[in-house]
Order: sequence, then structure tokens, then C-alpha cells
Amino acid sequence: MRPIDFYFDFASPYGYFMSEKIGALANQHGRSVTWRPILLFAALRLLGLPPPFEHPVKLDYITADFERSAKFLNLDYRLPPGFPALTQHAARAFYLLNDQAPAAAMAYAHSVLRSYFREARDISKVELIAQLVLAQTEKFGKLSAVIDLLKSDAAKARLHNAISAAVENKVFGSPFVVVDGEPFFGVDRLPQIAEKLAAVARARDDSTTGDKHDI
Amino acid sequence: MRPIDFYFDFASPYGYFMSEKIGALANQHGRSVTWRPILLFAALRLLGLPPPFEHPVKLDYITADFERSAKFLNLDYRLPPGFPALTQHAARAFYLLNDQAPAAAMAYAHSVLRSYFREARDISKVELIAQLVLAQTEKFGKLSAVIDLLKSDAAKARLHNAISAAVENKVFGSPFVVVDGEPFFGVDRLPQIAEKLAAVARARDDSTTGDKHDI
Repeated sequence: MRPIDFYFDFASPYGYFMSEKIGALANQHGRSVTWRPILLFAALRLLGLPPPFEHPVKLDYITADFERSAKFLNLDYRLPPGFPALTQHAARAFYLLNDQAPAAAMAYAHSVLRSYFREARDISKVELIAQLVLAQTEKFGKLSAVIDLLKSDAAKARLHNAISAAVENKVFGSPFVVVDGEPFFGVDRLPQIAEKLAAVARARDDSTTGDKHDI
Repeated sequence: MRPIDFYFDFASPYGYFMSEKIGALANQHGRSVTWRPILLFAALRLLGLPPPFEHPVKLDYITADFERSAKFLNLDYRLPPGFPALTQHAARAFYLLNDQAPAAAMAYAHSVLRSYFREARDISKVELIAQLVLAQTEKFGKLSAVIDLLKSDAAKARLHNAISAAVENKVFGSPFVVVDGEPFFGVDRLPQIAEKLAAVARARDDSTTGDKHDI
């Protein structure tokens, strides 16, 4: 079975909410999750779509909805000052880690999202991102070496490729979850993702039973 | 207790889904619903917002999501040919009825939405709308008289005022539900609307109990 794709932007509250839910849900159905951070604004620009919520009327609504949705999902959350932060360093660091150790990358991603949405730390700062990388592994060297890596052309190109692949897959929001080719946009699609995963699991069980019967 | 405001466009699939759910939910919590059809494209234009889903990538997603959401909510639905229909006659007729008999107006609104999303009838046609009005009441006269009314300046002005009021209340989508001043956009907010209604009902019960205790 293919892993579930989970696209998100590190500055997306709904993306943070999904990050706290998708792992356990996938696990219940024997599935794994591939985390795929993107820069949402860059992806939208490449798709020819306007940035989200730029209109004051929508921004007011969504700001209240972030808070309400966090309570509904029983998650710690507060809107960080200066929202939304720039997330290129956070996303580059993810792929730096992920290409070596996916488990460490996922732990790092949780630490970034929680630093931002629970502790209001400024995740646009490359120093903070490098510290959060160092909390997972020392294989990239000390703080200054990690910072140099995050500013390198290789790190930029890696993230650029990830965003291009997301755009190729028509990812136009955060969070954006793809289960066996079927896209789900928004944390409010969690119940429908659960239904899909259950249906796939049932179909698999049925076909297994069928096979046994044939024998 | 104030009625719940339910804004929608007659050509909105998510609006149709909400129309099949909001009455029963409100009723469970002892609340009534005021139906407020609008022309979504006109409201968005007045707010300075782009029309929804005009980008092919989003349109593809949303078309699949309509179908999936209908199944999830256990509702009959198919995308009508020529979607989205123009809905000015449907909306004008609603207010014509509503100013005389709200119950008939609600029954009429259900009949329009079901004609469109279950039977793929063309609700942009003034003749069909007039027939659906006549199915509720004969007080406006025969078919040709109802059609004349629907094309009248008075009917246009009534709808125009309804849309202006919606824009004033920052209604930027369909469905858009307002409970005691709190806005909820989208049929996927149904669980949060249910939570809000339950919380209001609990607070009311607590204050009633408190009053009795004071006596």
C-alpha cells in the first residue's frame, strides 16, 4: 500500500491541525504518511491562483475559524504575531533531514509547527530552524554549518523541486492530503479521509477473504 | 432566541447539502432558520472578491468533492448540465413568497434545490420557477401573472436589497450560516454549528437553573 501524501505549509494553521491528526488516523488503517512541506504562496503563484485570504473580510473570518477549529479538534493553538511567517528555511531543513532520516524529519516538522503555533516562536529565523535541526541530529555539524547548508543552492533547489512536484500534482492548498490518488483539501476533510481509508481497508480484507475462498 | 440565518445560492451544491441538514439540526436545539437566498456572484463582486472555483485545477477538485460530500452526507445529488445555472428568478420568487408566507417559501426553496440537484431541471428558466411557485400558492394568479411578477422591478429591487444586506453582513460564500452573530462558511462546518447550538442551549439551561435557585 502506498503511503498517504501530506502536503502543507509550515505557516498554515490548518496544516498544523492536520499534522496532529493524520499520523494516528493513517496508523489506524495500517498506512504510513509521507510529509511534503511546500511554500504555499509559491505553489499558488505557479498555478496562477491568488494568495489565500488576502481580502480583509475573509481574513477576519478565517482568523476566528482557526481558533474555533483548534478548539473543535482539541488542539493547543494561538495565532503567532506577524502571521504568516516566511517558511523557506523551515521547509528546506525538512528535506535536508528527510533525505537522510524520514523519522527525524517528521519529528523536526512537529517541533517547528508546535514552536510556531503553541509557543509563538519566529520560525522565519534561520537560527531557530538550525537549532531545531540540531535537536534531531548532529550529523550536519554545528549551528553555523547547518545555517550555511540551509542557505545553500542545493537546499534551495531541493525545495524548489518539491514545490514543482506538488504543483504537478495540483496541490492548491494547505493541508492537502492525497490517498491513493484521491485529493482532500482542508483539515475539515478528516472525516472523509477516515471513510476513504476504512473503505480501502474493507476492500483489501474482502479481496483477501476472496482469495482464501478460491483456495 | 434569534433565528439562525442561512444564506445560500440556489445553484450551490454545498448550499443544497446544507439546506437538507440545517432545519433538523436547528430544530433539535429549539431554533428556527431564516432562509436568505442570494446571488453569490453578485455578492462576491460587491465585496471585491473573485468568483469561486474559476481556475480549472480548483474546478476539477470541487466537482469531485461535490459528489464525495453528497455521499458522505447521504444525499441524492448529481451535477446538473450547464452548471452553474443563473438563479435570479429562483431567488426573486423566494422573496415574493417569503414576504407573504415563510413556510411556503421554504417549501418552494426545497423544491427548487431538489429540482436542480436531483432531477437536473433547468432552474434558470422563469417558466419552471413560476410553476414551482404555483405549486405552493395560487395567490399570485396564473403562470403568466407569476412570470410578470418575477420580471418586475419590484422583484428585482427586493432581491437586490437582500444581496446588499448579505454583503453588509460579510457573507462571502454559500452556504453561509450565522448563529447569534457567529459566521460559519461551508457545509463542512455542520459539526461546529452543532457544537455551538449545544453550547448555547447548555448556557440557557444553566441560567434557567440559576434563576430558580435564586428564588
